[in-house]
Amino acid sequence: MEKLESRSLAEQAADNIEQLIIENRWTPGEKLPNEMDMVENLGVGRGTVREAIKILESRNVVEIRRGKGTFVCDNIGKVGDPLGFRFASDKKKLAEDLSDFRAMLEPQIAEIAAQKATDKDIEELQRLCSEVEHMIINGENYSERDVEFHTKIASVTGNSVVEQIIPLIAQGVSIYVDLTNHELAGTAVITHQKVVDAIRNHDSDAAYEAMKAHMKENRENLELVKKK
Amino acid sequence: MEKLESRSLAEQAADNIEQLIIENRWTPGEKLPNEMDMVENLGVGRGTVREAIKILESRNVVEIRRGKGTFVCDNIGKVGDPLGFRFASDKKKLAEDLSDFRAMLEPQIAEIAAQKATDKDIEELQRLCSEVEHMIINGENYSERDVEFHTKIASVTGNSVVEQIIPLIAQGVSIYVDLTNHELAGTAVITHQKVVDAIRNHDSDAAYEAMKAHMKENRENLELVKKK
Repeated sequence: MEKLESRSLAEQAADNIEQLIIENRWTPGEKLPNEMDMVENLGVGRGTVREAIKILESRNVVEIRRGKGTFVCDNIGKVGDPLGFRFASDKKKLAEDLSDFRAMLEPQIAEIAAQKATDKDIEELQRLCSEVEHMIINGENYSERDVEFHTKIASVTGNSVVEQIIPLIAQGVSIYVDLTNHELAGTAVITHQKVVDAIRNHDSDAAYEAMKAHMKENRENLELVKKK
Repeated sequence: MEKLESRSLAEQAADNIEQLIIENRWTPGEKLPNEMDMVENLGVGRGTVREAIKILESRNVVEIRRGKGTFVCDNIGKVGDPLGFRFASDKKKLAEDLSDFRAMLEPQIAEIAAQKATDKDIEELQRLCSEVEHMIINGENYSERDVEFHTKIASVTGNSVVEQIIPLIAQGVSIYVDLTNHELAGTAVITHQKVVDAIRNHDSDAAYEAMKAHMKENRENLELVKKK
């Protein structure tokens, strides 16, 4: 009973510190007040402040740097696997659902990216595209770079939600790449380049169609794997 | 230094317990082995097991029921605000981005729902639609029920990712409803009903168009609010 109450005090303190961060608009990298200031500010004991900081660390809100203090996290409040994909009992169904979900979104994302891409964006996209190609040819694991490629297109849209969701569901890419054992990756080289070319030409329709084809290809490869 | 190591031991233990849950396919509601069994199983001290359980509690993987033990969470591994929307400094930009994001997805979701909805689904949708209507007419806060309505359509698709993402971004609905102060909600009554009618008729195209119109209307209302 006592334990539970002390925990909930710490959770309250954690929520209060979050409010401080929001109201004071403390940004990533900013240092939080030290422990004693927090104790005074929040009107709770030192142990509660410490526990609250630990809770905020597990929520990815702050990070503790040894001997330096407590700082606001870079990806404040963002969690690695927020939808609990690691607990999905049927990984193939999950891969299919992720693949279908991406097919709904990414063609439209490519369409917008073709309208908004700057020369610098296009250069970066071509670099990522070529790196993925290089890795596929060499039989290396390219899934992380592939996620970067798709995330870069998402970020060109300027929509913060799209930019956050794409890497999230692109976890599905790695699940997919594991499933297919890189055997069917070759085709991605061609469709990736078609997407980049369309974006370079600021051709929205072509970008939409190229990404749609890429998504269709990914989905079909998934079916091939299932039939094995 | 000592503290850090003990923390990382606890994190390791937490990861190991997650692996046990995944490998043994323990499902929500299932009871975990007691503390002493964990101590033996994981080869770590009692204090570390306790800290690991606390970490898993903060990750929404387990819940501790007083006097009863530790159980696998209902929404295992799913976090309330996984994208850290509460830290967005520009709430209006966030509302717009969420609105644009939904406009990309939800018409396609309604299209699929029209193909797959059972009589029971349609009955449930009509019930939610009527409840939202009732609440709007009475000037009540209908945002939670509205999220339920959109989430129900998403769940009809049978795509687990869609089903998880929609309530997540539908947080945007509440942000939107706060922004508009319910003043512009009246139009939602009509477009919601059009979506339900199209799904009832299993008319995919009409469902797509009705949801598209609903999203457009939401987005335009957001613009009106901005101009005040």
